[in-house]
Amino acid sequence: MKKKSKAQRQEELVEMLKADPFYTDEEIADLFGVSIQTVRLDRMTLNIPELRERVKSIAETQSSKVKTLGVKEITGEIIDLSVGQLGISMLEITEEMIYSKTNTLRDTYIFSLADSLAMAIIDAPKVIMRVANIKSFKLIEKKDRLIAKAEIYKTIDKKHYVKVIINNKAQEQIFRGKFVFEELD
Amino acid sequence: MKKKSKAQRQEELVEMLKADPFYTDEEIADLFGVSIQTVRLDRMTLNIPELRERVKSIAETQSSKVKTLGVKEITGEIIDLSVGQLGISMLEITEEMIYSKTNTLRDTYIFSLADSLAMAIIDAPKVIMRVANIKSFKLIEKKDRLIAKAEIYKTIDKKHYVKVIINNKAQEQIFRGKFVFEELD
Repeated sequence: MKKKSKAQRQEELVEMLKADPFYTDEEIADLFGVSIQTVRLDRMTLNIPELRERVKSIAETQSSKVKTLGVKEITGEIIDLSVGQLGISMLEITEEMIYSKTNTLRDTYIFSLADSLAMAIIDAPKVIMRVANIKSFKLIEKKDRLIAKAEIYKTIDKKHYVKVIINNKAQEQIFRGKFVFEELD
Repeated sequence: MKKKSKAQRQEELVEMLKADPFYTDEEIADLFGVSIQTVRLDRMTLNIPELRERVKSIAETQSSKVKTLGVKEITGEIIDLSVGQLGISMLEITEEMIYSKTNTLRDTYIFSLADSLAMAIIDAPKVIMRVANIKSFKLIEKKDRLIAKAEIYKTIDKKHYVKVIINNKAQEQIFRGKFVFEELD
């Protein structure tokens, strides 16, 4: 395969990140068959910050919409949020989130990623988590990155039913949860 | 009611803490109708450390038995543990565990108290939490203290079924959870 011209590559890079802002420099380099240094130069030329910065800036805007939680009480970074409907968040796994004996992600972080996103999309000042039914499908390795999607699928009286799905970087589903939050006065 | 003699009170204090080591100095003072200072003097005379120290010393011994988790990955202090059977742990709620908007305990701490105790009683080197079905009955206030009890009620092939109940200081049940952990190779 002939390599793309620099202009063509940079144009495609802009489109790619518009469609999905979660590509790391490594992944972009792989996709274009260029070095990481080339990707960094492309980003600098185009004035595109690196993944961590892109996510942080999106998360700041989105998190400010949350009613039920303080921003620091959310696990992961909120990428998209429609209060009363749905939300998307992302978790980069770091050293302190890991079980020392198995080198995999601790249950509490995956629960918390799901629970705090579910709670964040509820349109009420005070809620209690009444029920959570959760399943996990595989252990999550240290280097992975998780994307959580939450959606309110039913509201009866003051009870909000939320479904949460979490996928890993390889797009495998690794968690599913159903939560019931009840509004309190 | 006539106050108890010092000797009688100290004798009863020893018995009380043998039966239930979780009394704070405040609670003991209330029960005997004496000042907190008197309780502290009694404890010093009898060489009994304060609650926090008593719990820490018990927890160190008990936690060393855990196979599935590192000690620091356990939420709360393990008070009693029979690996393969049951466990009891205790959580003193502190400022950073609180939702800033409602001043109540964050879901993640109550989940983690239950999940880490349930995992701690499993007699296997590597497990995955496959399922958790949890219910919570009331919001937990900042000043409360939680006692969690976990028990393996069924084992089928490599799946361990664990029931966890959490009570608050007033002995109200505030959480119930069923977990399924599967042993991995």
